[in-house]
Amino acid sequence: MTSHNPKIDGLIKLLAKLPGLGPRSARRAVLHMIKKRSGLMDPLATALVDVAENVLICENCGNVDTISPCTVCIDPRRNNTTICVVEDVADLWALDRLDSYQGQYHVLGGTLSALDGVTPEDLNIAVLITRAEDERVTEVILALNATVDGQTTAHYISEKLKNAPRTTNVSVTAIAHGVPVGGELDYLDDGTLAQALRARKGI
Amino acid sequence: MTSHNPKIDGLIKLLAKLPGLGPRSARRAVLHMIKKRSGLMDPLATALVDVAENVLICENCGNVDTISPCTVCIDPRRNNTTICVVEDVADLWALDRLDSYQGQYHVLGGTLSALDGVTPEDLNIAVLITRAEDERVTEVILALNATVDGQTTAHYISEKLKNAPRTTNVSVTAIAHGVPVGGELDYLDDGTLAQALRARKGI
Repeated sequence: MTSHNPKIDGLIKLLAKLPGLGPRSARRAVLHMIKKRSGLMDPLATALVDVAENVLICENCGNVDTISPCTVCIDPRRNNTTICVVEDVADLWALDRLDSYQGQYHVLGGTLSALDGVTPEDLNIAVLITRAEDERVTEVILALNATVDGQTTAHYISEKLKNAPRTTNVSVTAIAHGVPVGGELDYLDDGTLAQALRARKGI
Repeated sequence: MTSHNPKIDGLIKLLAKLPGLGPRSARRAVLHMIKKRSGLMDPLATALVDVAENVLICENCGNVDTISPCTVCIDPRRNNTTICVVEDVADLWALDRLDSYQGQYHVLGGTLSALDGVTPEDLNIAVLITRAEDERVTEVILALNATVDGQTTAHYISEKLKNAPRTTNVSVTAIAHGVPVGGELDYLDDGTLAQALRARKGI
């Protein structure tokens, strides 16, 4: 019990479940909202109800939107020759902020993980194979995290695509690993440095 | 533009205005909510609308509640002889978690501040004087932050109370300043240490 009021306490408890917020910051957030009621709390309540009622997972790529297929999938300016595979919607948003990629996306919804018991059936892989079988598709880019699980998943998907009967003319690529832009060699971990050296290129 | 969807983008923008959240953590929070739609997003939307529609500032003490006078003010188990003055509702909640104080509260809504142009008229002081004039009140405890502004405000209020004609039998006290419990002398700032030494007591 924080505020003696069950409604306010309930709101604090729910807000505290958001990533990045705990009980203390949820209390602060609620008090801040109450202070800025017309400027923040009312619009936030309206926006939240609106999204909660209308949000959908795109049946095609797994992105979140209020329409399915989503805005990205139906955008006529994007090319349909490339599919960029990401783990999560957050990764799709991160890549899309760049504006340097204009193809399609595919959200797996996680990575294979023996530890967490995530099998290929739990991920959005079957739909990806079907999409890659479309004759317009020429390249699948694997943009998975540079973690053990991410790389295992990348390996699994590339094998799947190479062995599928109708994806023989699809090339499978992966985003580059190496020294991050602005990174100093001195501060990098050995794995990144070794990978950057292995993947050296003529200039 | 983050998600290509104006509703989701709008929600992220509003969430990012909460203290403790920025654009990145707001995006994470929204994706987390969308994943846990029935368990988190729907109840949160309902709770937020409910609080936004019903929240009130208590006309008596300045606490937030859905009734006015608030639950604390009308609680018959609390004594009416003591009023504890705090800067903010968050301070009221913090003190009330202790269960060691059973009197009334009074929320000022800030502190006097020459820098920010906060004058006595901007704070909830007039109501406090009126409340202290009630013949049942015997003590006003000033529980203000140990900052320059907090202490200036405490001084101003204690003078006001001492000079008011009908509060002569009200004693004005302030919470103790000193070494925090569990604090090591070595790590304390000089101000706290000096204050703790000045306020020493016989044991």
